[in-house]
Amino acid sequence: MRTTIGVDIGGTKVAAGVVDPQGRVHDVVKHPTPFADAEALADVVGAAVRELRERNAGADIAAVGIGTAGFVDADRATIVLAANLGLADDPFKERLQRRVDLPVVVENDANAAAWAEARFGAGRGSGHVVCVTLGTGVGGGVVMNGEIQRGGFGAAAEFGHYRVVPYGRRCGCGNHGCWEQYASGRALVGEAHDLARTDPERAARLVELAGGDIAAVQGGDITRAAVEGDPGALACFRAVGEWVGLGLADLAAILDPELFVIGGGVSDAGDILLGPVRDSFQRNVSGRATRRLAGIRVASMGSAAGIVGAADLALR
Amino acid sequence: MRTTIGVDIGGTKVAAGVVDPQGRVHDVVKHPTPFADAEALADVVGAAVRELRERNAGADIAAVGIGTAGFVDADRATIVLAANLGLADDPFKERLQRRVDLPVVVENDANAAAWAEARFGAGRGSGHVVCVTLGTGVGGGVVMNGEIQRGGFGAAAEFGHYRVVPYGRRCGCGNHGCWEQYASGRALVGEAHDLARTDPERAARLVELAGGDIAAVQGGDITRAAVEGDPGALACFRAVGEWVGLGLADLAAILDPELFVIGGGVSDAGDILLGPVRDSFQRNVSGRATRRLAGIRVASMGSAAGIVGAADLALR
Amino acid sequence: MRTTIGVDIGGTKVAAGVVDPQGRVHDVVKHPTPFADAEALADVVGAAVRELRERNAGADIAAVGIGTAGFVDADRATIVLAANLGLADDPFKERLQRRVDLPVVVENDANAAAWAEARFGAGRGSGHVVCVTLGTGVGGGVVMNGEIQRGGFGAAAEFGHYRVVPYGRRCGCGNHGCWEQYASGRALVGEAHDLARTDPERAARLVELAGGDIAAVQGGDITRAAVEGDPGALACFRAVGEWVGLGLADLAAILDPELFVIGGGVSDAGDILLGPVRDSFQRNVSGRATRRLAGIRVASMGSAAGIVGAADLALR
Amino acid sequence: MRTTIGVDIGGTKVAAGVVDPQGRVHDVVKHPTPFADAEALADVVGAAVRELRERNAGADIAAVGIGTAGFVDADRATIVLAANLGLADDPFKERLQRRVDLPVVVENDANAAAWAEARFGAGRGSGHVVCVTLGTGVGGGVVMNGEIQRGGFGAAAEFGHYRVVPYGRRCGCGNHGCWEQYASGRALVGEAHDLARTDPERAARLVELAGGDIAAVQGGDITRAAVEGDPGALACFRAVGEWVGLGLADLAAILDPELFVIGGGVSDAGDILLGPVRDSFQRNVSGRATRRLAGIRVASMGSAAGIVGAADLALR
Repeated sequence: MRTTIGVDIGGTKVAAGVVDPQGRVHDVVKHPTPFADAEALADVVGAAVRELRERNAGADIAAVGIGTAGFVDADRATIVLAANLGLADDPFKERLQRRVDLPVVVENDANAAAWAEARFGAGRGSGHVVCVTLGTGVGGGVVMNGEIQRGGFGAAAEFGHYRVVPYGRRCGCGNHGCWEQYASGRALVGEAHDLARTDPERAARLVELAGGDIAAVQGGDITRAAVEGDPGALACFRAVGEWVGLGLADLAAILDPELFVIGGGVSDAGDILLGPVRDSFQRNVSGRATRRLAGIRVASMGSAAGIVGAADLALR
Repeated sequence: MRTTIGVDIGGTKVAAGVVDPQGRVHDVVKHPTPFADAEALADVVGAAVRELRERNAGADIAAVGIGTAGFVDADRATIVLAANLGLADDPFKERLQRRVDLPVVVENDANAAAWAEARFGAGRGSGHVVCVTLGTGVGGGVVMNGEIQRGGFGAAAEFGHYRVVPYGRRCGCGNHGCWEQYASGRALVGEAHDLARTDPERAARLVELAGGDIAAVQGGDITRAAVEGDPGALACFRAVGEWVGLGLADLAAILDPELFVIGGGVSDAGDILLGPVRDSFQRNVSGRATRRLAGIRVASMGSAAGIVGAADLALR
Repeated sequence: MRTTIGVDIGGTKVAAGVVDPQGRVHDVVKHPTPFADAEALADVVGAAVRELRERNAGADIAAVGIGTAGFVDADRATIVLAANLGLADDPFKERLQRRVDLPVVVENDANAAAWAEARFGAGRGSGHVVCVTLGTGVGGGVVMNGEIQRGGFGAAAEFGHYRVVPYGRRCGCGNHGCWEQYASGRALVGEAHDLARTDPERAARLVELAGGDIAAVQGGDITRAAVEGDPGALACFRAVGEWVGLGLADLAAILDPELFVIGGGVSDAGDILLGPVRDSFQRNVSGRATRRLAGIRVASMGSAAGIVGAADLALR
Repeated sequence: MRTTIGVDIGGTKVAAGVVDPQGRVHDVVKHPTPFADAEALADVVGAAVRELRERNAGADIAAVGIGTAGFVDADRATIVLAANLGLADDPFKERLQRRVDLPVVVENDANAAAWAEARFGAGRGSGHVVCVTLGTGVGGGVVMNGEIQRGGFGAAAEFGHYRVVPYGRRCGCGNHGCWEQYASGRALVGEAHDLARTDPERAARLVELAGGDIAAVQGGDITRAAVEGDPGALACFRAVGEWVGLGLADLAAILDPELFVIGGGVSDAGDILLGPVRDSFQRNVSGRATRRLAGIRVASMGSAAGIVGAADLALR
């Protein structure tokens, strides 16, 4: 059986695994991510690849796919900017090829994860899938015509930074009104803060879960309270869900996918999130009376998506 | 030389031509468009194809591509809804195949035109082109990875109806704040109306060109005045250009093309429009300090784009 | 008993009445409004005053107060602009004094009506009342410290044209996003149009009341359907009520009245409107946890408010 | 000559002075403000009043006017909420009357300052003045019909918290899109941060004045750079000025003052601020073609305004 190795380079750890053509992960190794030292990072990745090859001597490993945080050039070789890794304009593929005698490609991690969902996860069977990752910020990937769409410069699917509100909330990117200021995990936490300020009674359970200080509340606390049925937490999800659905309506006008796959920590709430998202999507999408509406599902691959997607893209 | 026939079905006329592999049109016929009668429309198209084949007996015509107003299903066969033609859920390819013994495909006309621009026109040489047509409304087409992207249900690139202003101007689609309410020919005319109401002196030339009544002003009048250097008309273009650039910034975040090609009547103003568009794009695009910025050009194929694109897509 | 005459000059008719110090109207005469002819208008008003004096010979009539559509200068004498009457910069008080040997003052009609509500109507007993009239457009009046507040140039309380949405709906005034585009009778009708376009089933009763064509629907039809419990009509009122409440929240931040009095045709729906308005006001008002919140009531004087208010202001 | 004592209670110091009927301050004493201890605060104020009376034995001191941070009830007696002083629902007038055998009234400090500007400062001679204070946040006061307008509950003129952008920037008050998020000193600093992120070259002088770290930039630095002609700083003032002018346009629609007086630290920039403010006001005000436009001036009383206004209101 022909396999490939997928490597997921995140801000804190490097995870690598052997992936078969059905998208199953057979072995995983993890190492801490060195910061701002491309040679050290290449060493870690190289070592992980060697380790997996030794431990899986029988596996016919054909290539290595890297999924990394940050912008990756459309050449699938250069890390243009990865602020979380402290790298810029780095010829990372070349560094790795010096260490690994297999074909290597470098991809953006969100694209890799989106590809995994589209091929093997919640989007399986569809050639037109838009994945939206609702984490601290908002990212994602576009699969159209059965291919991952990287854009002309490798920077497609930066959904978090399209603008939903003129003169809206300031964003770390320097713009205002970016979608991720309204539809992310950070936005969910912001809703909890607002609630505590304006309706303390309704925020009581959230304050309690935050250990008494709403400033310490985490997205996971809000999900937990919402699962318990806490009205305040459910209101936070409705507010964020409204903005998520509205953004999906815009993406549908532009991309018309068959399916949206929603991942990231906020999606752990499942239908508590998806209910308001679907309502909002249907109210906001243009041409709703006449067009076929995309489905909306929660991602199913979990944290393995990055490894699987990078691995599967390695041979394409 | 192998050629194909392209047919452009618009609200008022059907235009068909023989197109060679270099995207050149060799012969054109035009007929009025029958309304709300699919059989009559198929007759007109069938007759045009026959006529072209007879007149171009030496041309090795291999297929027929149709570009039609309205939504076309991703099967490239069914007209889902074409309000301007009075058709809905029509198996138009089947109708044509009964009349034409060549392979036929049906495409959305904006997609066909975008394909022509990307292959032979202003986007020539790039595999990642987003065409935006600023006519009465706003439409367009997406070419990514060297392919036209129709979306999962054939309705991709309905740019005019993504929302730029929450609770903004009412749109004919039933939504509010759609881009085409701010960035179209109709929006340009609206700017002229506003100017006449709030600053009559500055609108004097526009009123004059409209024959004394600003309610009668046309987009072409505003372009003419702007070319003359009229400050009021230039202000109208700056206002619309601001919104066009802002929308391109959002499209760049989502699609990351190498190139935007701007067509439609509003683009007749050339740099009078593109200057403000480029300024606004650069101010509004997220990550402008680090990302490579797409170029912005005016479309170069003119009204032939629909025929050429439909013809060229017929063999793909 | 000392009385005064109040005259309400509207776009179609001139109504005049004798008003006692308790704000009761004792006799009314009505005449059609001449257009764009200040002398003819002064004749009509003069004749009405004479008629009332003859018919009420026993009434100790001390003065005449005029409430007129349009801007009135803070001198209470000059009609600055009354587009509906076809007048501009007209010394209307002077014209009347030539015809009437009683003290005359000229007021804006919305200010006159607001004064009547504050003194004798729904605002009775409070010295800090903001009246908001939701008619075709939105107008109103401000009573603070027990006095009508006309502003420095007589143009205060033009509530309909403060801006609630940047780049929002175009307004007849030449601006965009004015409150009256969202919170007026016309906005209510716009909601019905939107509903018919996007959710025809839910709009069925409204279409029926409009005689089969939603384009013909009137505000009164929507009120009637809402009173019947029609879900579509109720949704229209909720949408408009949301914007009304949001505007009241802004007015509270600026003016801090004890009481809002809501008049105009849209307020005929009573609690069907006020329910959503109060909800929205409470959600949107700044400092809602700590400040005392203004009450919100429906106007109680009906169409007599203009006559009563003008009459009562005549001696102040 | 009959005089009064004015006391300005701020978050850090209590300043008191003897003020004559022409609004001149004859003697001033200052003390630190005790926090969250109403008795201690009353002691400080009482001592300051005694001190001034002793030092100005010849002055015929008739009353004491207090201007304090926070909400003051319309009864001019109770501090409803003064978060900066740590007080809530405090019968502060009563406390003072136990210490001072002169008539005492308590006012909101922004109202007191606005009154001083309207009576003796930049608004002198006009009975319809709206003062807008652009400090860290935005506050102000309304003088209409020659009287300070406190509103029904003493909370009028909270201009900073009327909403200019739906779903806009989060505000400390719990709402979103409040004017002070766009038009204050803090907003000015935010513009400098944005500039440094998106156009570092243009922000170079601002970074330098901030000691190398834009996060440390102060409003005063931006003013200084703007006075030097630095293009980046001037752009910050233009951005904030646009929002200030837009807000004044809304206030004009509601209040129609003869004059706006702009105070607070941001106004130290004088015409550098007022130029863009006037431009924006004229572009945004409704009815600009027909209405008389309010003047816009910088405040002239400086930090004495609070003492003078409180003193002058003491006898009204």
